[in-house]
Amino acid sequence: MEKLSKAKSKELRALKLRKSREELGLYVAEGALLLEEALRAGVFPRYVVTCDELIEGGRDKIGGLLNKCRSEQIECFAADSGDFMNASDTVNSQGVLAVFGMPAYDLSALLDKPRLTLLVLDNVRDPGNMGTMLRQAAAFDSDGLLLLKGCVDAFNHKAVRASMGGVFHVPVFHELTPESVMETLGNAAVWPYVTGTRGKNAFEVSYPPRTAFIIGGETEGVQPFWGEHQVIEVSIPQTDKVESLNAAVAASILLAYRYQSR
Amino acid sequence: MEKLSKAKSKELRALKLRKSREELGLYVAEGALLLEEALRAGVFPRYVVTCDELIEGGRDKIGGLLNKCRSEQIECFAADSGDFMNASDTVNSQGVLAVFGMPAYDLSALLDKPRLTLLVLDNVRDPGNMGTMLRQAAAFDSDGLLLLKGCVDAFNHKAVRASMGGVFHVPVFHELTPESVMETLGNAAVWPYVTGTRGKNAFEVSYPPRTAFIIGGETEGVQPFWGEHQVIEVSIPQTDKVESLNAAVAASILLAYRYQSR
Repeated sequence: MEKLSKAKSKELRALKLRKSREELGLYVAEGALLLEEALRAGVFPRYVVTCDELIEGGRDKIGGLLNKCRSEQIECFAADSGDFMNASDTVNSQGVLAVFGMPAYDLSALLDKPRLTLLVLDNVRDPGNMGTMLRQAAAFDSDGLLLLKGCVDAFNHKAVRASMGGVFHVPVFHELTPESVMETLGNAAVWPYVTGTRGKNAFEVSYPPRTAFIIGGETEGVQPFWGEHQVIEVSIPQTDKVESLNAAVAASILLAYRYQSR
Repeated sequence: MEKLSKAKSKELRALKLRKSREELGLYVAEGALLLEEALRAGVFPRYVVTCDELIEGGRDKIGGLLNKCRSEQIECFAADSGDFMNASDTVNSQGVLAVFGMPAYDLSALLDKPRLTLLVLDNVRDPGNMGTMLRQAAAFDSDGLLLLKGCVDAFNHKAVRASMGGVFHVPVFHELTPESVMETLGNAAVWPYVTGTRGKNAFEVSYPPRTAFIIGGETEGVQPFWGEHQVIEVSIPQTDKVESLNAAVAASILLAYRYQSR
């Protein structure tokens, strides 16, 4: 296998930073599961990097994935453990990672769908939480994630990992403002619902075919903007024993309920 | 404030291990939020330890919590940062932790309730996941968690932290066998439902007043035992884009749906 070049090694290190990911239009997915999920979804990496010393379990599986990549003309490089760990964001690496081109999704095309379930995420700062939302969005067939400014990057290493492959299925739009989202949804006649403590029981609402759920992050919740505009508040009934639900859990409950009644 | 003794410092270190927690009947909850939630729930720690050097934000809040503890005759000790970090499981400690007596819950008393929602957890190995389940169990008023042998300890530092205080509200029973759980549920006429890929849409089931949800852990799912016995399989409809749902998410969806229709 060709050895990883110094230039590629430098690129990989840079991809830990959001700025570099955006400049280069690339992101990293670590581990055999993500590579497998990508190939299964027909999303092909630009290149794959392995480190033989770090591969402990699943050598046969990784070998099979590399063969599949080669048959698709995807370059595979061998890195020494120093270079690999510089590129990796995990402590216990499986010795395989793949670099993907950042997809360019078309929001207007998406909004043409007659049936639509969007998640609008506000103040979601934790990459693990972001990844879990991607995972659940894929599980429950959400059509896209609209991320407001201040949200963590969905292409962050940890978010990609936590998405368990959801990142290969769900279109993500970054760095939006609440004003632009409100206008976009309004023009496209997508109904926005925000979760809160008042409002109708979320399980008793008849959601229209084109629905968006606005979910606030763990610490801050949604920005005041949403309270000042025409969005419908729904609540997931809960006790007051603990502070409000984890954002990913709230999103999952809404998406699951909507998906099963489709 | 009295200085933390060498004996207490040793005890705190030991409490990182499940074996010691069980022997001593104690567990640790780190951070101001958990102490606050405990006091709010009327669950008083045996003692509290602070480390002045490590307290960065929330000094007033922590001071208020300590005053409240003292007014309840709860001892508060000052630790140096070395002793504190030896006791702590976090990298960025807030400089406050509390030691609680492990509660002894009575399963038969619990089973006398006319309405009951139990979670039976099988192969849940991740402490973060376990803690999230405790959190959601508290949020959605589950009456108890029955943990089968092989599950991670719910009093593990990380699980306690992730529970966001749920640990102070939800009775937990450890180290059960599927045979004993099945017998207990059967004798008490609690209906067991297991989540799977077949079975009726979980949102379309009329759950009886006394219901138990059996949830399998992330990697292995539930043990074959449940498939061989009289449990009803229900499914949370989902796409096949990603592998099965996170166990904590599946539990949350079932509990939330049941709670809102109570």
